[in-house]
Amino acid sequence: MEIAREFARYVIASRLEAVPQPVLHEALRSVLNWAGCAVGGSRHEAVDRALAAIVPIAGPPQASVLGREERIDIAHAALINGMSAHVLDFDDTHLRTLLHPSVPAASALLALAEHKPMTGGDFLHAFILGVEIECRIANAIYSTHSLDWYITGTAGVCGAAAAAAKALALDERRIVYAIGIACAQAAGMREMAGTMTKAYVHGRAAQNGLFAALLAKQGFTSAESALEGEHGFFKVMAQRSDCSQIVAGLGSTFEIASNTYKPYACGVVAHPAIEACIRLREEHGVRAAEVEQLELEVHPRALQLTGIKSPPTGLKSKWSIYHSAAVALTDGAAGEGQYTDQRVQDPVVAALRERVNARAQPALSEVEARATCRLTDGRTLECHVEQVIGSSARPMSDRDLERKVESLCDGILTPEETRALIAACWGLPALADAAIVARAAALRR
Amino acid sequence: MEIAREFARYVIASRLEAVPQPVLHEALRSVLNWAGCAVGGSRHEAVDRALAAIVPIAGPPQASVLGREERIDIAHAALINGMSAHVLDFDDTHLRTLLHPSVPAASALLALAEHKPMTGGDFLHAFILGVEIECRIANAIYSTHSLDWYITGTAGVCGAAAAAAKALALDERRIVYAIGIACAQAAGMREMAGTMTKAYVHGRAAQNGLFAALLAKQGFTSAESALEGEHGFFKVMAQRSDCSQIVAGLGSTFEIASNTYKPYACGVVAHPAIEACIRLREEHGVRAAEVEQLELEVHPRALQLTGIKSPPTGLKSKWSIYHSAAVALTDGAAGEGQYTDQRVQDPVVAALRERVNARAQPALSEVEARATCRLTDGRTLECHVEQVIGSSARPMSDRDLERKVESLCDGILTPEETRALIAACWGLPALADAAIVARAAALRR
Repeated sequence: MEIAREFARYVIASRLEAVPQPVLHEALRSVLNWAGCAVGGSRHEAVDRALAAIVPIAGPPQASVLGREERIDIAHAALINGMSAHVLDFDDTHLRTLLHPSVPAASALLALAEHKPMTGGDFLHAFILGVEIECRIANAIYSTHSLDWYITGTAGVCGAAAAAAKALALDERRIVYAIGIACAQAAGMREMAGTMTKAYVHGRAAQNGLFAALLAKQGFTSAESALEGEHGFFKVMAQRSDCSQIVAGLGSTFEIASNTYKPYACGVVAHPAIEACIRLREEHGVRAAEVEQLELEVHPRALQLTGIKSPPTGLKSKWSIYHSAAVALTDGAAGEGQYTDQRVQDPVVAALRERVNARAQPALSEVEARATCRLTDGRTLECHVEQVIGSSARPMSDRDLERKVESLCDGILTPEETRALIAACWGLPALADAAIVARAAALRR
Repeated sequence: MEIAREFARYVIASRLEAVPQPVLHEALRSVLNWAGCAVGGSRHEAVDRALAAIVPIAGPPQASVLGREERIDIAHAALINGMSAHVLDFDDTHLRTLLHPSVPAASALLALAEHKPMTGGDFLHAFILGVEIECRIANAIYSTHSLDWYITGTAGVCGAAAAAAKALALDERRIVYAIGIACAQAAGMREMAGTMTKAYVHGRAAQNGLFAALLAKQGFTSAESALEGEHGFFKVMAQRSDCSQIVAGLGSTFEIASNTYKPYACGVVAHPAIEACIRLREEHGVRAAEVEQLELEVHPRALQLTGIKSPPTGLKSKWSIYHSAAVALTDGAAGEGQYTDQRVQDPVVAALRERVNARAQPALSEVEARATCRLTDGRTLECHVEQVIGSSARPMSDRDLERKVESLCDGILTPEETRALIAACWGLPALADAAIVARAAALRR
């Protein structure tokens, strides 16, 4: 079976009218969450430094940098907007694979929409297809892949390429080429955790996927067997890959339907423990000073991915379940303000962090955690989170998402601008020009 | 041991005066061969199509496109010049690892030299250091890596980054970051053989390495343990990697000293068989029509990498030892003109290709081959090549290289322009401005 060709045929044959309403609504929620994250991350030092390197070599002012005044060429805009949307570790998650679906597809598409006009409906349709393809590729490899690679840097680039290829109305052969060129750019290892390069890997998935589609549009050739071939993507990216289901149900099931959004600004695997700590504080009145010992029981993957005991920086603290638990108990929150250099160095937080123990508990699911607190007065309190907020079973509401976006935009856009951005995202299906979303999220010069 | 830090210290401490004269001369030969390949490849369809995608999004006209009139930003120039230099499969080879050393380092540096002036000596020095680092990384991984990945796309990007970092005079911390950012862009699987994306993977190593250095210059952070870390480059790129020797002898041995140049325009592993066939023709007067059967015995890797029996296109025929042997016997040559769609479809060549058998012979070295010809008149003729021309033991002479460059530039540059380019390359150590090489290789507008 030629997988890229199957994907290409699906991308061409798909009709927006055939996409079920709940899937469309989930896509809107994804775009809204992505746009808020991009605005919220746009002032991060990583974005400042990347722009300082890019502006001298960038092309014409074709596209907006969300949350900022600069205008640059569409490829670099896809990179920067993807970096901004990911740098706070606050973007969406395809829980089965830990892929972040919106960064590649939405960042590539919205930049493209400013150069090649498309309706909001066309944008949404291409976005849904891009997410479908990147998630299906991720489904085939994640079991032996996710601990060494950023799956958004590897599978995600194919999603960005497919989304851009749909928006550019490429033919079957050219979509196959676009996916092949994307495969040849799959990159990014997890060693980059806690550094600016993590955001770069995610933004590059958007830029490289968009560029793959632009090359393919010119008839630039690539391997048609890029995914399943003897020396192809699946061979190099995973010790075992399961391609048996990869194209089953194309057009009738939609991976974006199981997208999830983070209530907390850190790696999703730490969220159940964070909610357990916040509930210990809110429901039992526990305060940091009276905690003698805090025991966490979590799914093994949570410890593998967020096992940093004493994070040196705010960026690294997003990968510390110890820090996450400490700020959750101290502040009752785990937003962007809890993952700063300042909070990492705070003496109360640092001392509590040392009193946190975490244990991998294979009997727990990935959305589950137990926190047990021994207090100085001898009492022991426990909180068991069975389904963390933000998981598929307990999704954030539309209003929760709006509040998250409002908070992310606060201080960057005015409240009126934020309301206009939120309205533009919800209104995408009726927008004659998808680029309105980009202009609503960028600063006027 | 922190490998990137060791490399960074070496890059900073190195002095051009301490580089032995034969090493400098080999670097000049490498740059000359690279420049000729870049001019020769500049009219390839892959380059035309890539430029068609790039020009609308490219930045300011900072750098030359070798062999052409366009001027584009330095990052895209590094990409295109790297693609041109590799697309004919005629560039240099670090035989131990099959890495193509000059494409990443020279393409990144010469583009940079047009924007940030540097002397010919500084260019040469940074080039030698970049090649050193990419080859040492390749030495650690090639045994389990080379059959699935393009090692120039993975290790090469680190060489481009190190070369650009030296030219930009980055400090130790920033060179470590540049190598880390480069690692996070290591990409490109061998499934792309015979498609335009193969050249793209090689050109991207130059562009991505240059961009890594530009980001690092701005203090953009990356993992300091990018190479040896638990989820780092060596872990994901090779089942077994040997880092024991990776920094041994830094500053006293030079990998560029063992660089080799191709007399034939195809994968280097097929060269011994090609020379054997050319000698059967020249020394024994064998002609295609009288060959009943041609038996090749080659090193096993030659068959693994060039085992395509009936190549569908000229680009794919570079990966067919059967086609290579057939044109070598028919034409007495294996230059760019032997790997065209036309030669692939030629009835005489196609028929002879079918009469070629190839056998992996583990007792042979990689620079060795045996060709045995059974003729229609019953005679059997044999030719045994023990050390192929172009190998370390039988290098092409300086004059051989000049003739190769003249042939590559023919029809693109005038003979005077070609002579000026060759003179600029040999004269690099005394050039006040390395960009003179770029201007000599580009067309005047």
